[in-house]
Amino acid sequence: MTDWPDLAGRLEDGGHVLPVRVYYEDTDFTGAVYHGRFVNFFERARSDFLRLIDIHHTDLAKGVHGAALAFAVQSLTLTFTRPARIDDLLEVHSSFSDCRGARLKLDQLIYRGDDLIASAAVNVAVITPEGRPSRLPKHLADTISRFLPSELGS
Amino acid sequence: MTDWPDLAGRLEDGGHVLPVRVYYEDTDFTGAVYHGRFVNFFERARSDFLRLIDIHHTDLAKGVHGAALAFAVQSLTLTFTRPARIDDLLEVHSSFSDCRGARLKLDQLIYRGDDLIASAAVNVAVITPEGRPSRLPKHLADTISRFLPSELGS
Amino acid sequence: MTDWPDLAGRLEDGGHVLPVRVYYEDTDFTGAVYHGRFVNFFERARSDFLRLIDIHHTDLAKGVHGAALAFAVQSLTLTFTRPARIDDLLEVHSSFSDCRGARLKLDQLIYRGDDLIASAAVNVAVITPEGRPSRLPKHLADTISRFLPSELGS
Amino acid sequence: MTDWPDLAGRLEDGGHVLPVRVYYEDTDFTGAVYHGRFVNFFERARSDFLRLIDIHHTDLAKGVHGAALAFAVQSLTLTFTRPARIDDLLEVHSSFSDCRGARLKLDQLIYRGDDLIASAAVNVAVITPEGRPSRLPKHLADTISRFLPSELGS
Repeated sequence: MTDWPDLAGRLEDGGHVLPVRVYYEDTDFTGAVYHGRFVNFFERARSDFLRLIDIHHTDLAKGVHGAALAFAVQSLTLTFTRPARIDDLLEVHSSFSDCRGARLKLDQLIYRGDDLIASAAVNVAVITPEGRPSRLPKHLADTISRFLPSELGS
Repeated sequence: MTDWPDLAGRLEDGGHVLPVRVYYEDTDFTGAVYHGRFVNFFERARSDFLRLIDIHHTDLAKGVHGAALAFAVQSLTLTFTRPARIDDLLEVHSSFSDCRGARLKLDQLIYRGDDLIASAAVNVAVITPEGRPSRLPKHLADTISRFLPSELGS
Repeated sequence: MTDWPDLAGRLEDGGHVLPVRVYYEDTDFTGAVYHGRFVNFFERARSDFLRLIDIHHTDLAKGVHGAALAFAVQSLTLTFTRPARIDDLLEVHSSFSDCRGARLKLDQLIYRGDDLIASAAVNVAVITPEGRPSRLPKHLADTISRFLPSELGS
Repeated sequence: MTDWPDLAGRLEDGGHVLPVRVYYEDTDFTGAVYHGRFVNFFERARSDFLRLIDIHHTDLAKGVHGAALAFAVQSLTLTFTRPARIDDLLEVHSSFSDCRGARLKLDQLIYRGDDLIASAAVNVAVITPEGRPSRLPKHLADTISRFLPSELGS
């Protein structure tokens, strides 16, 4: 198997950047990217941000860090600024804005070059398999906290 | 071809109700419906609400009402209250909250029985094929206005 | 909650018919339905066919019929005959062609009026949560067998 | 904007390899990747194979090579060998098996490490915006032909 160094994007400037290509599946009959697809692009970026700081869905689900856990989006505010098109190369820029108890907050922006395409403010809960909120294990919360604006000196 | 009377849901109480079944494609490995799928459920409900008041994407795109037009979501606030599961029968309840110029606003709620599963506040723009905002033709705006709270006496 | 009598389609002529509406999410930038979406339409029809003969994914997963089971598609041959478009009303016609041991075979056709849009020949396995093939419990296999061509006298 | 050298995969051994990560959106409640998602993975790989040999959907749609053209899948045989899971890193290996007139044929295989996960045999037509078959412009057909087994000496 080949090595794919940038598949999960990169940690940059206290946050994360993921490249996303627009494929057939992402567009709709108006010729632009279907608005619901951006929700997936934002989710991929969150998963890869966590992956690069060594927090994995499979480990959480298997209970590697204690009780079995998963992430669940609680609320999401999406703004669509410009249409994206087939073959476009987009970048999802993600940063954590808060992490306490069973909750994470992120701000996410999608660009094509310098043009803002869409943005999201996301509240994520940590839950058990039964759907109950659960604190993130302390060492994982500490890892995320290093990416909070207060820690980044901004 | 068989007649399917309720396929587009029903107009009820000044709004619209669409039944949605949860299939394999809607769920994720946590066992619940993937949060991004609700965006599709909300979109289907808006399309069917418009369909039942005789506003059709194909007619708009073909320019049956004047210039070619399409709807584009501008912003969307989503809240996820309870998980939905495979085989669940959900109902999307939609109502217009505003309609002026090139913009529509809707409030949408997804229930399973009496349980609220998810909600959305949606801003939709009317756009040309080039992506520029355009007023909805007056007779269509009038049709939608009959479903506004002010007209419904609420 | 309202009653939606036809939401899972209907049993007809020894098989099953499911209506499917084409929404924004189903189309791509060429203006037609994205070919991968038909895979979902076929899956929905299989789930609803089983639902109407009282075989439910949730029951199987919970082990209501013995060991926990799920259906997994093993192979699928798809043919795309005509494009479908936004707002189209399609019908998925499904029939079982074989049922033995841990395997089911179905033939599925999607029509718009009298026009054939797409077809599928599907092999489905019954599997355990670990992914191993498992015989379908006898009373469920018997239920399905009543829909085989040999039983239908064709 | 950052440079992402491997985003479209690589040309290797007379064919193309694309890495694909499994995200939330790709899985279903059984814990495995939903079978319909592989159709998207195969499509992404075809688009990126063409991209790396300088054949672009946008150029075709705009008529850069003559009449406006698009690719449409005509038939597809899929086989699912092993389940894939959340966080898996997959590789799609694609090769052309035929190219004549308005048709392309490809063989595609998805691996996780050395394990075969799924395979596809795909027939693609070149069509006009009205959906009629059209020959691929000669210089594009010549480009693809260099990747046929007969030319590769295999």
